[in-house]
Amino acid sequence: MKEVKIGLLGCGTVGTGVARILLNSSDLLQSRIGAKLILKHVADLDMKTDRGICFDEGVFVSDAFQVVDDPDIDIIVEMIGGETVARKLMMKAIANGKHVVTANKALLASHGIEIFRAASQKGVDIGFEASVGGCMPIIKTIRESLVGNRILEMRGILNGTCNYILSSITETGVPFAEALKKAQEKGFAEADPTLDIEGFDTAHKLALLSSLAYGMELNLDDIYVEGISNINSMDIEFAKQSGYTIKLLAISKFSGDSVEARVHPTMIPSGNLLSNVSGSLNAVTVTGDAVGEILLHGYGAGMMPTASAVIGDIADIARNLMLGVSNRIPGLSYQPQHIRKIPVTPMDDIRTHYYFRFSALDRPGVLSRVAGILGDHGISIQTVHQRGRDEKGAVPIVMVTHIAREADVMNAMDQISSLDVIADTPVLIRIESDDID
Amino acid sequence: MKEVKIGLLGCGTVGTGVARILLNSSDLLQSRIGAKLILKHVADLDMKTDRGICFDEGVFVSDAFQVVDDPDIDIIVEMIGGETVARKLMMKAIANGKHVVTANKALLASHGIEIFRAASQKGVDIGFEASVGGCMPIIKTIRESLVGNRILEMRGILNGTCNYILSSITETGVPFAEALKKAQEKGFAEADPTLDIEGFDTAHKLALLSSLAYGMELNLDDIYVEGISNINSMDIEFAKQSGYTIKLLAISKFSGDSVEARVHPTMIPSGNLLSNVSGSLNAVTVTGDAVGEILLHGYGAGMMPTASAVIGDIADIARNLMLGVSNRIPGLSYQPQHIRKIPVTPMDDIRTHYYFRFSALDRPGVLSRVAGILGDHGISIQTVHQRGRDEKGAVPIVMVTHIAREADVMNAMDQISSLDVIADTPVLIRIESDDID
Repeated sequence: MKEVKIGLLGCGTVGTGVARILLNSSDLLQSRIGAKLILKHVADLDMKTDRGICFDEGVFVSDAFQVVDDPDIDIIVEMIGGETVARKLMMKAIANGKHVVTANKALLASHGIEIFRAASQKGVDIGFEASVGGCMPIIKTIRESLVGNRILEMRGILNGTCNYILSSITETGVPFAEALKKAQEKGFAEADPTLDIEGFDTAHKLALLSSLAYGMELNLDDIYVEGISNINSMDIEFAKQSGYTIKLLAISKFSGDSVEARVHPTMIPSGNLLSNVSGSLNAVTVTGDAVGEILLHGYGAGMMPTASAVIGDIADIARNLMLGVSNRIPGLSYQPQHIRKIPVTPMDDIRTHYYFRFSALDRPGVLSRVAGILGDHGISIQTVHQRGRDEKGAVPIVMVTHIAREADVMNAMDQISSLDVIADTPVLIRIESDDID
Repeated sequence: MKEVKIGLLGCGTVGTGVARILLNSSDLLQSRIGAKLILKHVADLDMKTDRGICFDEGVFVSDAFQVVDDPDIDIIVEMIGGETVARKLMMKAIANGKHVVTANKALLASHGIEIFRAASQKGVDIGFEASVGGCMPIIKTIRESLVGNRILEMRGILNGTCNYILSSITETGVPFAEALKKAQEKGFAEADPTLDIEGFDTAHKLALLSSLAYGMELNLDDIYVEGISNINSMDIEFAKQSGYTIKLLAISKFSGDSVEARVHPTMIPSGNLLSNVSGSLNAVTVTGDAVGEILLHGYGAGMMPTASAVIGDIADIARNLMLGVSNRIPGLSYQPQHIRKIPVTPMDDIRTHYYFRFSALDRPGVLSRVAGILGDHGISIQTVHQRGRDEKGAVPIVMVTHIAREADVMNAMDQISSLDVIADTPVLIRIESDDID
């Protein structure tokens, strides 16, 4: 029986899950892969915590570089995270001719080109299914199953923390701060939740998916990112009344000439499957010219679901090792010479439906002034509602527009904000809808 | 540039889609796979129909056996269907050392063991992603992504015809016959719809998925199959009122010792994602011990979505051919020596929730007699409703039970049917619910 030797770097939550599957499901893996996967070393600075796993003598070590330099090891599983030590270890592993499996989306989104180039030169593979969407096989689906498709569009709920918070507000009406606190207590949000709630984690994932789908180099800075910290329970309630749910969505669309790439709170029609993704779950839709739209849904994080994806990558590499091959599938989904720079559509040029909430003084003529400004900018209104009254004697006016251009909307908003009858900064939420307008 | 030569047998709907992608997306495929996919021959008896494709001189032939015997061809794509000629051609192709891609679930469900054994002996691969769930990568997900999971459960809406009909009845309240007629007019149902509406097509797919998930030989005859032709719009309406949707579900569950495998109309709580799968779409959930539950959703049929899955398989084989390897992944997901016979749970022993509808004479004491019989069989009632009145002066009584054993339920039904106060044969629909009972 052929053996494949694995070195695991980092034994935190996901690392522990990976070790558990390798040790507890060893027979299952062997019966499916036809090779014995051996966890030769686990490196972690914390050698005291009880992880509920009984490692053999000598398996657990503190020095990750020792593992990366072990000539006996075939596959390095990098579960340390961060962009400094993890990057050094990964580059060293590649230089040593080892295949690498990682869930480190931040590192891949910022240094992916360098890493994949080195891997391709060394003839080693990088598995990174667990870096986007936890257990969902979205990377395999794009790189392999949809190979015959021109990918046209992707929409994803890719951050469990944000989805948990938005679902809480939607279901119970609690304010944002309280929903965040509950998420932290339940382990669905970090003590410092910035990376998640400000949308950066989602942007990292969108950058990776877009590279794979369109065969492009996508600079993180080119993605428009807006988080959920300004989302108000009032808007969630108004959205619900109008038949929408608010989700933090990663959106990318390929027009043939340019790619839209944006992350922001988004209103989705309540009948859409994405609107029914609740709690810490993730989902992503991919639209291709042949396949139409497919949707994947599952746990986007957590010890065992993420470990499941890591094991899938390990198995893929093990199957290659048994046959003595590598680089069967190009890391970034397209052959390196076919990876292009595709322009990213400036945010000003995107076109979508918009939801506005104005806090307006309850006087005659207000609506006509607001509507007049929108009309002057070529924005036509689909629905207008006055929704109750707010505390300050002003009334919330809620509008949904037909498809409009972002720059026009922003200019109109500026003018509307400066009207003396507008009490507060208007709220703007973009809408994703499949309706033809 | 390495070339991979393809012979396509059958140029009907899906075959035409495959040819279109191979010809129209040739550059895309090359930029992703790194090989040139060449459609060397297309065989179809109908050489006259305009398929909107311009084949080069000599590509289109009438004799499929000539294509299978062409020593130049690497991959045979079998799109003929049926179990006679298709089987002969497939076995001949394998004997000639050619890899095969097919969507023929009926053939694989009934002769899979023979076909996969021959392929494994000859060292060729069989791609069959398109045989289950159309474009959804459910086979790749089970065989590859979930390799580290003990699969515990699968639930699928795997037949677009049935889902279209049930969705029509649910949305518009039309009777079954009318919904079927509409489906036929729209091309969602065959002139003879038996294979679909009686659940056999779904059973073929469930047999394949269960083999892959549990590493078992599953005899088609061991699957309990009940179609949708007896589903009444009244039951769909009552289900809706109770918060359920009726779907034709393929269900398999692995207890560790035995496998449940059944296809029948099923009531699902309306909040469940499967209940929101509408029209001709398909979806499947897979539950694994690590991954939790994941869901895939997409077009289960149609020219281009199915062709997308076929192309995915062709690409997988082409990538192997470029590296000179094959049998990288065992056809039936487990290494042949690990495929077991796992007993199928007799239908009598399954345990689930049940919905009953009795047409009872409107007399005092009826409910207590019915409830008494259920109680005698250890079946406890969760809810009882009297829903309006039917035409014959009898009243429909609708009950939902706590979890009960099928054999007990059937015995109770027999006794209840013979009561003089019961006007009609009781209706029974099983419920899938994740509630702990």
